[in-house]
Amino acid sequence: MGQTLTEKILSDHLVDGELETGEEIGIEIDQVLTQDTTGTLVWLQFEALDLDEVQTEIAAQYCDHQTYQFDFKNTDDHRFLRSAAGTFGAHFSRPGNGICHNVHKENFAAPGKTMLGSDSHTPTPGGLGELAIGAGGLDVSVAMGGGPYYIEMPEVVNVRLEGELPEWSTAKDVALEMLRRLTVKGGVGKIFEYTGPGVENLTVPERTTITNLGTELGATTSIFPTDEETRDYLERQSRGEDFVDIGPDEDASYDDEIVVDMSEVEPLVAKPSMPDNVVPVREVAGESVEQVIIGSCTNGGYEDILPTAKMLEGREIDMQTEMIVAPGSKQASEILAREGWTAELMAAGVNFSEATCGACIGIGHVPASDSVSVRTFNRNFEGRSGIEDDSVFLASPEVAAAAAIKGELVDPRDLADELGDLEAPGVELPDQYDGSKADLIAPDESVDDGLVKGPNIGDVPLKDELEADLSGPNLLQMEDNITTDHIIPATQDILMYRSNVPKLSEFTLSRVDDTFAQRALDSDGGFLVAGENYGQGSSREHAALCPMFLGIEGVFAQSFARIHKANLFNFGLIPLTIDADTYERLEQGDDLAIVDDVAAGVRSGQEEFAVDVNGGEWEFTAHLDASEREREILADGGKLSHTKKLAEDGDSGATPADD
Amino acid sequence: MGQTLTEKILSDHLVDGELETGEEIGIEIDQVLTQDTTGTLVWLQFEALDLDEVQTEIAAQYCDHQTYQFDFKNTDDHRFLRSAAGTFGAHFSRPGNGICHNVHKENFAAPGKTMLGSDSHTPTPGGLGELAIGAGGLDVSVAMGGGPYYIEMPEVVNVRLEGELPEWSTAKDVALEMLRRLTVKGGVGKIFEYTGPGVENLTVPERTTITNLGTELGATTSIFPTDEETRDYLERQSRGEDFVDIGPDEDASYDDEIVVDMSEVEPLVAKPSMPDNVVPVREVAGESVEQVIIGSCTNGGYEDILPTAKMLEGREIDMQTEMIVAPGSKQASEILAREGWTAELMAAGVNFSEATCGACIGIGHVPASDSVSVRTFNRNFEGRSGIEDDSVFLASPEVAAAAAIKGELVDPRDLADELGDLEAPGVELPDQYDGSKADLIAPDESVDDGLVKGPNIGDVPLKDELEADLSGPNLLQMEDNITTDHIIPATQDILMYRSNVPKLSEFTLSRVDDTFAQRALDSDGGFLVAGENYGQGSSREHAALCPMFLGIEGVFAQSFARIHKANLFNFGLIPLTIDADTYERLEQGDDLAIVDDVAAGVRSGQEEFAVDVNGGEWEFTAHLDASEREREILADGGKLSHTKKLAEDGDSGATPADD
Repeated sequence: MGQTLTEKILSDHLVDGELETGEEIGIEIDQVLTQDTTGTLVWLQFEALDLDEVQTEIAAQYCDHQTYQFDFKNTDDHRFLRSAAGTFGAHFSRPGNGICHNVHKENFAAPGKTMLGSDSHTPTPGGLGELAIGAGGLDVSVAMGGGPYYIEMPEVVNVRLEGELPEWSTAKDVALEMLRRLTVKGGVGKIFEYTGPGVENLTVPERTTITNLGTELGATTSIFPTDEETRDYLERQSRGEDFVDIGPDEDASYDDEIVVDMSEVEPLVAKPSMPDNVVPVREVAGESVEQVIIGSCTNGGYEDILPTAKMLEGREIDMQTEMIVAPGSKQASEILAREGWTAELMAAGVNFSEATCGACIGIGHVPASDSVSVRTFNRNFEGRSGIEDDSVFLASPEVAAAAAIKGELVDPRDLADELGDLEAPGVELPDQYDGSKADLIAPDESVDDGLVKGPNIGDVPLKDELEADLSGPNLLQMEDNITTDHIIPATQDILMYRSNVPKLSEFTLSRVDDTFAQRALDSDGGFLVAGENYGQGSSREHAALCPMFLGIEGVFAQSFARIHKANLFNFGLIPLTIDADTYERLEQGDDLAIVDDVAAGVRSGQEEFAVDVNGGEWEFTAHLDASEREREILADGGKLSHTKKLAEDGDSGATPADD
Repeated sequence: MGQTLTEKILSDHLVDGELETGEEIGIEIDQVLTQDTTGTLVWLQFEALDLDEVQTEIAAQYCDHQTYQFDFKNTDDHRFLRSAAGTFGAHFSRPGNGICHNVHKENFAAPGKTMLGSDSHTPTPGGLGELAIGAGGLDVSVAMGGGPYYIEMPEVVNVRLEGELPEWSTAKDVALEMLRRLTVKGGVGKIFEYTGPGVENLTVPERTTITNLGTELGATTSIFPTDEETRDYLERQSRGEDFVDIGPDEDASYDDEIVVDMSEVEPLVAKPSMPDNVVPVREVAGESVEQVIIGSCTNGGYEDILPTAKMLEGREIDMQTEMIVAPGSKQASEILAREGWTAELMAAGVNFSEATCGACIGIGHVPASDSVSVRTFNRNFEGRSGIEDDSVFLASPEVAAAAAIKGELVDPRDLADELGDLEAPGVELPDQYDGSKADLIAPDESVDDGLVKGPNIGDVPLKDELEADLSGPNLLQMEDNITTDHIIPATQDILMYRSNVPKLSEFTLSRVDDTFAQRALDSDGGFLVAGENYGQGSSREHAALCPMFLGIEGVFAQSFARIHKANLFNFGLIPLTIDADTYERLEQGDDLAIVDDVAAGVRSGQEEFAVDVNGGEWEFTAHLDASEREREILADGGKLSHTKKLAEDGDSGATPADD
């Protein structure tokens, strides 16, 4: 029987295990990507593991999240990251050069390669046939050292695309349609492989919009086959030599299939405050809009901004609406500027900004209170924009630009009818992506004069081995779909402490209960309890590291988001699954005690653990779903302690193949 | 005897007093300018005074300081300001449209007019022959209502310019030369009137760089005569009709004269951390530079950025140096983009940013710790960049761009010798300043649907009448040259509370002593003691308002900065001058009691007040230098209480001509 594209790439990179759904496999990693929010810890861990030089084909360090500094910490981090890239042999992308996913797509993403990135939207280059997976920073550190990446073999789902997008409908709407159908949990444990006759009707930038938003489905990754569109894109990026013709066998067998007829996709929006809260834009037309932002790793490309520039040419945006364009990369900025579109956007009333993540993570351009903001981003989790009671709609650039023109939400088809002279801009690639590379410093160009650490760059905390007895109070009873933004908010005033764990930990779960951090510190250990899909959202490992620092021993949840669960193992917190009845019966403040010998049970493969509530009041069973490798990591107190222990036992930290 | 240009304009606008140096005069105001940091209070006061509509020819509200929002407060303020402009009849400049002084210069500044602005760099349009003065927001509120502005007639100093600037020397260097000679106190109580044969060798943008930096001399304002250069500039701005031919009479008599031979001016820098710490750049050549920023109201124009773009065309900046260009206005951004220069800057490695005050007030692009930043701004006060131990050098765009190319400070003449192909770019104006006006909303275009106040927009606090007995501890003994940045830091995390006085007051003088605010609140009244030039720097009235809120009754200082002294009267704090011996003898914690009846003494014109120290230990004499009008304001508890009292007594608050 034939192979899926996913199986082909994984086979090529397999170093451990078998490609059976649900089995743990170890794969070799060709490329790694780190950004500035997660990168500092990645490199501190790389240093702590006594590794000398990056072993992957490509390692690239980007500065994109923390670029609107308002004290020295971010700039110090950027300087540290530049010194780490120079010292250990990674590419360094300066602040202002763009968002990691965009710059990586332009410069490095290549068909058939594997990539690991410490950012949840790492799957973006799937649109070019690269198998790219988001992971915790510690996994990235180990992969950079040449170690394999371990993962449970996901289900592979065939997403069969048919037909062609109508005018005014976009790749963003295809991705929103997926979210509408499958919800933010619909992709957990899955890889979406796009196939079918519709694929050739999408350019590479459109494909990467879809793979980027696959993260919001909870998917491990999303991937497209390559074809003439892929070759064409790479040639326009002057990287024709990276093209490889890859795709699934005709008789490949998938775990599931979804069919999307693109000819039936209409302009959609995700309403506040979840990306799967999707409706046709015409259903919410008339809603007054105070702010419109075009940008992000989802829709910040040249191909995304050009349509809005065409729509705005010769017009002015509504007087009561602010519009910001923040390109995803300086390549996009430079080409738009060279072709005159930047001037047109400015003339229409657009505030043209730097190429950063910016507003997407609540840094700059926060909405006014009680106001609607329409953004081309991938997430509208409550509070992510920087204000608690925000109303953020996610939309295509075309829908967003229409809202800026009209001052309210409007189906762009209706606006075109109303204005008479507004044409659907369509998708257009530049003849050549000829931006300068001045901001991307190659390892052989960089300065290797050691690591430069500012005063806010601290040590990496370690955890002791797991003990036999594990008990403590239920310190926080949480609902379904708690995101990593709830666990550690990504806003600037908080994330600036990302390399200073004691300070950062003060903000842990403050969005749920601002007394939590102090209560956790005051308690001698304790647990978190949550409903479904705990830890969805970003890959940031601080969401496990900070609870660890506060003394949390484990999390009881109905289910866990994939990356966050891996982060819990990596930082030595036991993730235990409970059923709905148990969840309902548990109350904050309950005293919980695991009855079994936890250390022995974890090491021996025990799956069920009895838990006593309030000293004999009642008891429930919690499940540990973990590979042998994950059990060893957990029992040793987390991956860093584990890897160090292996090294002390005589195994090389530099090639932790037995990790 | 003939008149100076200053006297001519003041004569035209005089409504009270006589033009004798040191005498108080009241003048009619033609134009007012407010920005977002000070504007919220201006409009709240305008509302509190029960005024209906702006009475000046032009009132313009700009959004420039608070544009990198990281929560709702700034955006709410902008929305409030837009609603205030719409309600009361002012022009509204959107966030991203540029810095108030740049946009005002482009659109409104006109020869022969008077302007009052709630920003210390308000004198900028003096380069066009406008007499523009920075003031506290309350004075601006009253002027907007049609009331005169009161000021002591300053000395008028003739600055005679001779010769022509050599290649690589700029108007910035002329201004730095003035600072080198006169220091940051050299202009206190003075108006600098530029004359002489050198004037015609400077374009209007060069002249406004000089008038802008006059603020750093402590000057009331600076002004140039008009000529063909002025007419030419206004015509290129499509405002030829605003041209008026004005200048001093040939036999005008000045209080003092300074001669600057421009042919002898070489490239200069102001070293950290005071704008008058000026040396030739060659004296500090070789200093490693990690950051370069081009922008601000001083050197953020098209004419400032174009030279750097020409210098960088076909080159790349040093790998270890970050370079940011933040244009002063979107007009500049748009023209640079249209002409292709923005793309060239990006290609060289420049991070091209929004048109805002930004980094100049510590918002965004904060330097790394222990690193040098070279900026084309007007202030390098310690900590202003957003980091306590900063090393900010002030320089011309040419010197700054040379540092970015070389990665270290270098005299651009030496760099030109070294590179061989680097030509002095010179100064060039665009044929036509043809930027869009989409971001500048005229009163007749705007929406008048009432004031929109977000949750962080509070009430204006009031103070009671001055009492007979005034006593309390010396709560803080300070040094010379305490700036308004010391009194209330202008960094983003603090200034976001500018419309929330109780919260903002917590940060009062925290840069000098972070226990001060709490100590002041705990004390029942008290005084501040300072050396020379207390309150230099910006015009922000919060520097008086917050001490007032904390219960401070007065300030004893060897001398006061002009705008801040006016703000102290306006908020009901008595500013008393002491001699050097008294200053030296006073200690923090001393109990101070004014022996005389303060309320009666202030109203009756008493100039000397005896002050008892520590219940009879010793005594000193303090001087109150105040006009009759200032005495009434002070005795009534500040200008707002005073104006309200007048209104209650039957005088109209709307035209407080007797104010």
